[in-house]
Amino acid sequence: MFTQEFHRSCCCSKNASSNRRNDHVCEPRVDFVFPEVRFPSRRVFEVAGEKLLRELVHRHHENLLKSQIFYLFPTDKEAMEKLVKRSADFVVEMCGGPDYYTSTRGEPRMRSRHFSVTIDEKAREIWLACYKYALKEVAFPFSVLEEFWQWIESFSIRMINRRTTLEPPRRVYFDEIKNFFTP
Amino acid sequence: MFTQEFHRSCCCSKNASSNRRNDHVCEPRVDFVFPEVRFPSRRVFEVAGEKLLRELVHRHHENLLKSQIFYLFPTDKEAMEKLVKRSADFVVEMCGGPDYYTSTRGEPRMRSRHFSVTIDEKAREIWLACYKYALKEVAFPFSVLEEFWQWIESFSIRMINRRTTLEPPRRVYFDEIKNFFTP
Repeated sequence: MFTQEFHRSCCCSKNASSNRRNDHVCEPRVDFVFPEVRFPSRRVFEVAGEKLLRELVHRHHENLLKSQIFYLFPTDKEAMEKLVKRSADFVVEMCGGPDYYTSTRGEPRMRSRHFSVTIDEKAREIWLACYKYALKEVAFPFSVLEEFWQWIESFSIRMINRRTTLEPPRRVYFDEIKNFFTP
Repeated sequence: MFTQEFHRSCCCSKNASSNRRNDHVCEPRVDFVFPEVRFPSRRVFEVAGEKLLRELVHRHHENLLKSQIFYLFPTDKEAMEKLVKRSADFVVEMCGGPDYYTSTRGEPRMRSRHFSVTIDEKAREIWLACYKYALKEVAFPFSVLEEFWQWIESFSIRMINRRTTLEPPRRVYFDEIKNFFTP
């Protein structure tokens, strides 16, 4: 029905060779496929605990404010604190903790909630790198680290709403970064 | 392998009902499918002619400068004239005329060439509406109007690089607008 090939082989982008230029058809196609998102098991909450998960989100946002994508976040301290709290509520709940987020904010609908912010592939990579540092900074328990990472790595791809390349978003698999966490 | 359902039914966006919140998997999915793009046949060039096609593109850009998306275009008159010329070269060639565009600029790669400009669904609709008016203003030959329209309508979807909604881009089929052209 449609193909997952990228625009590379599409006349909209290439291959308008003189003998095919007119009267030809670019097949339907998709930009890229959002990969599977595997949400953490309750074990992440049980092992890491609420306090550490909140500290993690706090550190993540401190890193974001020092990153190249600082401008995507509120400059107002109070607004930023609210955002960190909401974000921590979400992370705690998705890891198996109390329903802090959905009981106050409703359905997550995270892609929708982020439409007002321009998130391109590079911004997503920076966001993810800030998590990598935060995970190390809080000494996140190694036994649930992979599970947490595979969630946010794939989940973050769903937030991308600005494309700047024909390439699909870069995967950052745990295997690629795990040495960063081992002493 | 993956589904064309939208994020509506995805835990990233909704349905994080308490019994499914943890340990569940959001299946891979696509944002939307770029529809088929059927390039014009040589008949469009033969019937409309180069002069009218160039006038059409000129009018289109005049309309764009008066539209809500004026800010996407150069304010410098000379830069704008260059852009109109390049654009007309492209349209003339894609409709079956001489290879003005590819002989000077190379492969069209139109999605890639537009990445530097933020094009959301609304901008694309405005761009298309400006063409609708331009087609009427130049009295585009009705016998090749549908063929031209089905090309630009579907082609314009491929230029969208900023998503602001879960909905797929709105189709504007010829049947919906043809009354605009009949006296």
